[in-house]
Amino acid sequence: MRYAVILAGGSGTRLWPASRRARPKQLLALGPGGESLLAGAVRRGRLVAEHVLIVTAEEQVGATREIVPGIELLAEPVGRNTAAAIALAAATLAARDPAAVLVVLPADQHVADEPGLGRALAPLCEAAETHGTIGLVGITPTRAETGFGYLELGEASAGATTRPVIRFVEKPDVVTAQTYLASGRYLWNAGMFVATARRLLAELDARLPATAAAARAIAAGGAATALYEPLAKISIDHAVMEKADNVVAVAASVGWDDVGSWAALPAVHGADEHRNTVVGEHVVLGGTGNIVMSDDDTVIATVGLSDLVVIKSGGAILVIRKDAAQDVRLAVDALAARGLGRLL
Amino acid sequence: MRYAVILAGGSGTRLWPASRRARPKQLLALGPGGESLLAGAVRRGRLVAEHVLIVTAEEQVGATREIVPGIELLAEPVGRNTAAAIALAAATLAARDPAAVLVVLPADQHVADEPGLGRALAPLCEAAETHGTIGLVGITPTRAETGFGYLELGEASAGATTRPVIRFVEKPDVVTAQTYLASGRYLWNAGMFVATARRLLAELDARLPATAAAARAIAAGGAATALYEPLAKISIDHAVMEKADNVVAVAASVGWDDVGSWAALPAVHGADEHRNTVVGEHVVLGGTGNIVMSDDDTVIATVGLSDLVVIKSGGAILVIRKDAAQDVRLAVDALAARGLGRLL
Repeated sequence: MRYAVILAGGSGTRLWPASRRARPKQLLALGPGGESLLAGAVRRGRLVAEHVLIVTAEEQVGATREIVPGIELLAEPVGRNTAAAIALAAATLAARDPAAVLVVLPADQHVADEPGLGRALAPLCEAAETHGTIGLVGITPTRAETGFGYLELGEASAGATTRPVIRFVEKPDVVTAQTYLASGRYLWNAGMFVATARRLLAELDARLPATAAAARAIAAGGAATALYEPLAKISIDHAVMEKADNVVAVAASVGWDDVGSWAALPAVHGADEHRNTVVGEHVVLGGTGNIVMSDDDTVIATVGLSDLVVIKSGGAILVIRKDAAQDVRLAVDALAARGLGRLL
Repeated sequence: MRYAVILAGGSGTRLWPASRRARPKQLLALGPGGESLLAGAVRRGRLVAEHVLIVTAEEQVGATREIVPGIELLAEPVGRNTAAAIALAAATLAARDPAAVLVVLPADQHVADEPGLGRALAPLCEAAETHGTIGLVGITPTRAETGFGYLELGEASAGATTRPVIRFVEKPDVVTAQTYLASGRYLWNAGMFVATARRLLAELDARLPATAAAARAIAAGGAATALYEPLAKISIDHAVMEKADNVVAVAASVGWDDVGSWAALPAVHGADEHRNTVVGEHVVLGGTGNIVMSDDDTVIATVGLSDLVVIKSGGAILVIRKDAAQDVRLAVDALAARGLGRLL
């Protein structure tokens, strides 16, 4: 059986002030129509899987249950990056269903074309079930993005809808990103993939045995906190994908974006004819390329400013240049240093 | 006897979102230590006058009384600019005290050096009492300001502390303002002046007789609304000062500023070593020349931005370039047009 595994343990500092420790970004109403990113991920999971399972942090269980009631939750006692989260999900599902197929989906993304994503995932599921592949959804690049990792593709076999992944590339510099975009052989690594629980556990046994053993022990009823605490903080890409054989991808053009910073908001909500993305009842006069949002009825008025991010959430207001949206971390650090942790 | 007459009828659109229809700028806690501008004006009035009288709009009487309790208020039924307000004060005080001397002070200004202002006003009071002059406080310019009117001075008589005003100049362009600054013969017209009630009423009888007559009738107990409504909307400068003889000035360097827009906030509150004026518990990282304030415990964080004004007040946030601080009006107009009048 196919299981969607939603990875929802992140914090999302770069979406402060909307994201807070107790209210991470996947729980925020950032999606179209005020949908949470997590609810969107669950809906995508249901497109391709009979069962949806969310892996989240223990302290986020309550808030997560409120946002997506009725979905099975697997709680990590501490965050140990994606390899551990996926090991836990794979071990849990394998104990229940030895033929389990995992469709792993990050919780903090936006996909405009959900049927398109379903069409990309379907052959990956079939390949996992019949050939034991690890199959990634690769997003056809639409810009020379330096904020994502890339997949380099090899040649397709005759008649195959999937293509082999011959290399994982870390975030490139802009010149490299431009050559990737032009080459047609590189896809964005969206962190979405399909594999059987059996294959994933075999890979983890070989490459990250302590994590695999701990995950199995927890699935068998072991004490999660004691077992989880010492695990390596490593991503599934570094731990498994980059070293594994028989990794394939399907290219998808599905209006995907990682909602990693405020600069991604236009991808989710669109923009007006002045390239302003205005979520709510705000007044943006004479400027272009701004991103303006508040989470209550506070009205934001900007005059004659361009390429600015203005976000009001809770008791805080952030104003930052759009091209520096990554620097939100600096504001968060400064607030912590000034004893304003109540806002974090 | 000397009477300080505080002109407090304005609205202050350019200080939106802090100033609102029901809460005009002179009532706001914009001064050092959260003092209202009006309370500062009252204190300056008490420096030089035995009695303080505030002229304000009828609909602001309640709010004004709260801010400065125990001060006599004269309520205008409708705003008719400064000539009418001063006529009303002069007629009211003349009926009470034929030898009344008025020290007229606008309510929306900041003066850092109050003893210095007292020293400038004293000879103007004496000149008004002994020579019947109209005597203005002229502020020695500290920059080539294009937002103020100027007074051109003639030569001083031997031994005199006052100098004749030979011309009133409207807001100049920047090149003209630079020549004014360099010449040493021009002062900023701060709207602060001293004259006897008798002299003011005689000037108004000659130049604005309907206003003088209405003011006298109201002072004698006439129906204010009916008498005031038809009066001309004209400033005391245009109606009287520019045409009158025997107008003198004393030059003052007293840390004066008109708090006409957010750009004036540094003059009131100072600035840090990065030229940021930050009123309240805010975080301004890596930028210079910003003005950041909120009227509650909302924290504002800006990263890498310079020469920006960010103001949170009530249910609204304003973000505007400091050098465009006059354009707040555009935001206010746009809010009105969108049916967001509740914020005005």
